Amino acid sequence: MIKVAQLGAGRMGAVHARNAAANQRLDLVALVDPRPDVAGPLAAELGAALRGFDEVLADPEIRGIIVASSTDAHLDNTLSALRAGKAVFCEKPLDLRLATLLAAKGELEAAEDRLFVAFNRRFDPHYRALKARIDGGDIGALESLHIVNHDPATPPPAFIPTSGGLFKDFTIHDFDLAPWLMGEAPVEVFAWASCLIDPQIGALGDVDTAKVLLTTATGRLCMISNSRRTGYGYDQRIEAFGSNGAARVDNVTNTAVSVWGESGAKADRFPYAFIDRYAGAYAAEMDHFADVLDGKASPEAGLLASIASLELAEAAARSVATGAPVRL
Amino acid sequence: MIKVAQLGAGRMGAVHARNAAANQRLDLVALVDPRPDVAGPLAAELGAALRGFDEVLADPEIRGIIVASSTDAHLDNTLSALRAGKAVFCEKPLDLRLATLLAAKGELEAAEDRLFVAFNRRFDPHYRALKARIDGGDIGALESLHIVNHDPATPPPAFIPTSGGLFKDFTIHDFDLAPWLMGEAPVEVFAWASCLIDPQIGALGDVDTAKVLLTTATGRLCMISNSRRTGYGYDQRIEAFGSNGAARVDNVTNTAVSVWGESGAKADRFPYAFIDRYAGAYAAEMDHFADVLDGKASPEAGLLASIASLELAEAAARSVATGAPVRL
Amino acid sequence: MIKVAQLGAGRMGAVHARNAAANQRLDLVALVDPRPDVAGPLAAELGAALRGFDEVLADPEIRGIIVASSTDAHLDNTLSALRAGKAVFCEKPLDLRLATLLAAKGELEAAEDRLFVAFNRRFDPHYRALKARIDGGDIGALESLHIVNHDPATPPPAFIPTSGGLFKDFTIHDFDLAPWLMGEAPVEVFAWASCLIDPQIGALGDVDTAKVLLTTATGRLCMISNSRRTGYGYDQRIEAFGSNGAARVDNVTNTAVSVWGESGAKADRFPYAFIDRYAGAYAAEMDHFADVLDGKASPEAGLLASIASLELAEAAARSVATGAPVRL
Amino acid sequence: MIKVAQLGAGRMGAVHARNAAANQRLDLVALVDPRPDVAGPLAAELGAALRGFDEVLADPEIRGIIVASSTDAHLDNTLSALRAGKAVFCEKPLDLRLATLLAAKGELEAAEDRLFVAFNRRFDPHYRALKARIDGGDIGALESLHIVNHDPATPPPAFIPTSGGLFKDFTIHDFDLAPWLMGEAPVEVFAWASCLIDPQIGALGDVDTAKVLLTTATGRLCMISNSRRTGYGYDQRIEAFGSNGAARVDNVTNTAVSVWGESGAKADRFPYAFIDRYAGAYAAEMDHFADVLDGKASPEAGLLASIASLELAEAAARSVATGAPVRL
Repeated sequence: MIKVAQLGAGRMGAVHARNAAANQRLDLVALVDPRPDVAGPLAAELGAALRGFDEVLADPEIRGIIVASSTDAHLDNTLSALRAGKAVFCEKPLDLRLATLLAAKGELEAAEDRLFVAFNRRFDPHYRALKARIDGGDIGALESLHIVNHDPATPPPAFIPTSGGLFKDFTIHDFDLAPWLMGEAPVEVFAWASCLIDPQIGALGDVDTAKVLLTTATGRLCMISNSRRTGYGYDQRIEAFGSNGAARVDNVTNTAVSVWGESGAKADRFPYAFIDRYAGAYAAEMDHFADVLDGKASPEAGLLASIASLELAEAAARSVATGAPVRL
Repeated sequence: MIKVAQLGAGRMGAVHARNAAANQRLDLVALVDPRPDVAGPLAAELGAALRGFDEVLADPEIRGIIVASSTDAHLDNTLSALRAGKAVFCEKPLDLRLATLLAAKGELEAAEDRLFVAFNRRFDPHYRALKARIDGGDIGALESLHIVNHDPATPPPAFIPTSGGLFKDFTIHDFDLAPWLMGEAPVEVFAWASCLIDPQIGALGDVDTAKVLLTTATGRLCMISNSRRTGYGYDQRIEAFGSNGAARVDNVTNTAVSVWGESGAKADRFPYAFIDRYAGAYAAEMDHFADVLDGKASPEAGLLASIASLELAEAAARSVATGAPVRL
Repeated sequence: MIKVAQLGAGRMGAVHARNAAANQRLDLVALVDPRPDVAGPLAAELGAALRGFDEVLADPEIRGIIVASSTDAHLDNTLSALRAGKAVFCEKPLDLRLATLLAAKGELEAAEDRLFVAFNRRFDPHYRALKARIDGGDIGALESLHIVNHDPATPPPAFIPTSGGLFKDFTIHDFDLAPWLMGEAPVEVFAWASCLIDPQIGALGDVDTAKVLLTTATGRLCMISNSRRTGYGYDQRIEAFGSNGAARVDNVTNTAVSVWGESGAKADRFPYAFIDRYAGAYAAEMDHFADVLDGKASPEAGLLASIASLELAEAAARSVATGAPVRL
Repeated sequence: MIKVAQLGAGRMGAVHARNAAANQRLDLVALVDPRPDVAGPLAAELGAALRGFDEVLADPEIRGIIVASSTDAHLDNTLSALRAGKAVFCEKPLDLRLATLLAAKGELEAAEDRLFVAFNRRFDPHYRALKARIDGGDIGALESLHIVNHDPATPPPAFIPTSGGLFKDFTIHDFDLAPWLMGEAPVEVFAWASCLIDPQIGALGDVDTAKVLLTTATGRLCMISNSRRTGYGYDQRIEAFGSNGAARVDNVTNTAVSVWGESGAKADRFPYAFIDRYAGAYAAEMDHFADVLDGKASPEAGLLASIASLELAEAAARSVATGAPVRL
């Protein structure tokens, strides 16, 4: 088994640590987190030691580092780990500032075969199956894409100022998904956004509802819909239209149970939290990290995907600000 | 257009009369019903005259008679019309007494190309499409059949004594459907029945819930489920299992609208009344009658189907009474 | 019964004439069409006379005129009929030229309670049920709308030059639907369009694929997707997102039959032609015309809806031409 | 962590061993299997030692034994383990011979809080959710139950002679499920069975297609459908009808992807192997064993469920043999 250590024992940290511990190729030996009250129980549950970051970096037996610290520490932690010769699993985003990322580009590129940035959508079995259908020609040549990415409930207002805003925090998933599914980079972005849900979000300078259009060099069109609140769970759907048919990923339900009553047929709920909807994706991305450590795969996404999606997010924000499409 | 007259202006009578009036090959010229208060408004709506039965039979321009009188008058009315040389559309059943039917067999057989007994299920577009799939080999050789036929709500107790009982009144549809879909007559019947829903039905000697098994000479198996009350609409489904797959007709919904809320995804209601669920079937069976009158088709169902389904109903009742399977 | 006459016996003319003939409140007494080979058989089938337009206009017994002539004759025919005191059912569009329509505005407004322009989507039972759910508060306050309107197959190239282009010919339905469902007029339009399907369409100066965004004064957002070719039938769907849930109209299937085989579960096909998908809507709009003639209803749509949807179509075309959003 | 050992490293053994290894409360320390070529790689993969059964029984640190040996050894192995004071997870069935089971009843009863027989259906999240809906009153009082349990493909003929026959090998799951869901034991059984699929199965004295009816003291009715071959995957469905509605578990699909093409909408496949369909159930039953070892739960199923389901299987076989219902 390959020894790995993890930075961060917060909400996403717990997900990644449990997946690392359950992965039969990985041995999670250490957790690094300044908060022993948070990290201690998790470490105990998983049989990992609480250790310092420097100590972990200096341990030659530890070959991989999972970076699940706070977002603003991701890039520094990643660079430190790469410099120590480790492979890195970095929870998305690598960084929210495009300029900062570009400044580190040279160093990151040099280590690109050890840097995996975990964009979870790409590892969802439903989306992977959709991509396989598209790439396999099941719908002919892809012409357009519709993505619905709606959150169940607005985040707490305190989260907004450090989030990077809707496009960098939330649409970023779609900005990564769309080129991946289309097999082609967008060349122009148009976005409209409103604050329709929570005035507090608007007061903080952010939006909660957006419609984004992307187009590619060959004329493919992509529509993205975002909302911060559905009231009915995590609405996660994709439709792909091609020259010979269409394919879609519909929402999954918690179970296959439906109940028929006076008012009609009622299916079970959709998963509410992203942690539930993408549980399979989180496990699969940890397994991909094992593949990278095993030399069986190059990182599915890394620096370039981070830059490309951030560029789209910044372009979308500019489009909202100027009211005009933005060419990349 | 072919002139037809109709006996009976009750609930089903209104359905048939409106379908006859709307059919572009039929001209409904007369309604016969002893209750002018019921028949008058319907006749006015449809531009038909109120006339006597004898008068209608004597009118050489009237070529077809739609028998929608009370069940116990069906056979007499049918025989009178056949003797007058008319073609007959008889609302199911031709008669509830097997012995009576057998007694009239000779005369009815002689007119079999003019006698159409309207078993509505055979004309439902969904069931016809299912039969086409089965007959077309889409599921290989048919092996078994599951029929769910559940009513939305129990009938008024006053209806029970003249209904013929659950098997003759309600399962009779399934006893006609099953051989039609299987392409083979059942040779043995086993039935269990309970009064689980309405004790008044039990007090009147009838049951409200039944499970029936049929088997054919080649070993095909059919399960029929009946209930007098669902609480959620008219539950009408069929599943066919074959050597190479399965096919099913699921319930239809009133519209394609679904609403997603906190408790999950809710589809629209199922049709409640049989008149709504089988509206298309009623129109199609009237069109079939026009085909018969036009010489374009032989009656899809008539005396033989009436006898065969009644025999199954009586066998099922005997099986319940004896607790043992009944061989036909 | 109310006597009506119809102009035009082409493809849509046949639909409307049959619906008028089948409607129990309308009596289709005359067909007007310069092509007796086309109009003759239809007139014979429906028991209507072939007559001239002037003759029909002069007949005081004829109270309603159904205008199903060629698109460029709609407005003239409509004006003639209105001047003769008739009520008019005009197949959409009233005219393709906004300026021409505005020039006739005064005269048309004066007769607005007799002018019904048949935008079929509003009469589809699924969309009406969706609107009832939205208006009834089932999803809270409406925030955004997604409309998919994709044709099964590209029209013949010869149709393109007189069609008015994708936005006026096809998206026009969505431009009428969106304000009707949102209860609010769009104030800004952004559109991207490509010729991805048929280069002949591009050579004729038209597009075959488009994504359109609309926004309203209160910030509601609407996305419209159009394609001239699906390969799988007529893709007609709407999703509405609100403050308390979502509602959608999914595609209908020809029957409720599905077949399960080695490669999975296969539902029945979607309707292919618009005439099949909207058969119920065409019958319902004819019934609405009977309501208008009966004095029971004001026309659901007329001059204003025609102008409003044309304005949106022209704005969308300008947006494509300029690459920028267009304010109305 | 609680140390456990497992007997058997065959197909089901591999499933249970991997689940034990992945369970965060269990430590799979030993595998017992006479075939080192089979057991060795599995032991290596999971970090378990290959040891002898006696040795394992004598090890006081090992508290639980997972019995996944060949079916005819289950009971002996279980008794040995219980006598050694271990808790036992026994892969279903405990034994195929009712008489043998009854002979050991006294000894097994004395250890019933340490004996868990793993009937997997009870641990499937979909069926558990269905039971929760039934028990929670979502459909009112339960009246009847329909179970479809169809295998994707016939077993190899060599399996038939030691299988116990269709009812003991396959329907046994339904015989356990039905009383569990109904909350009431069946009092009468009627079964019809045919050999419709594979004549080799018939030549070996077994059947491949069956329809079984059960009824309870209060008149509840249950229909079970079994087939050894669907051609489309593992068809696993349940419908429950109550006084106030119905609930069903439909088949799950491999992913939420559907593809729309010329012939209609095609959903993804159903899981083919039981190991895939019930992967969640197998993990959940291992977790239940951890609960038993932890003192947090009594075994969900054990001797009594084994006896009850075997009695139903034998009664069903008698019903087929005699052609009559069998009273329990």
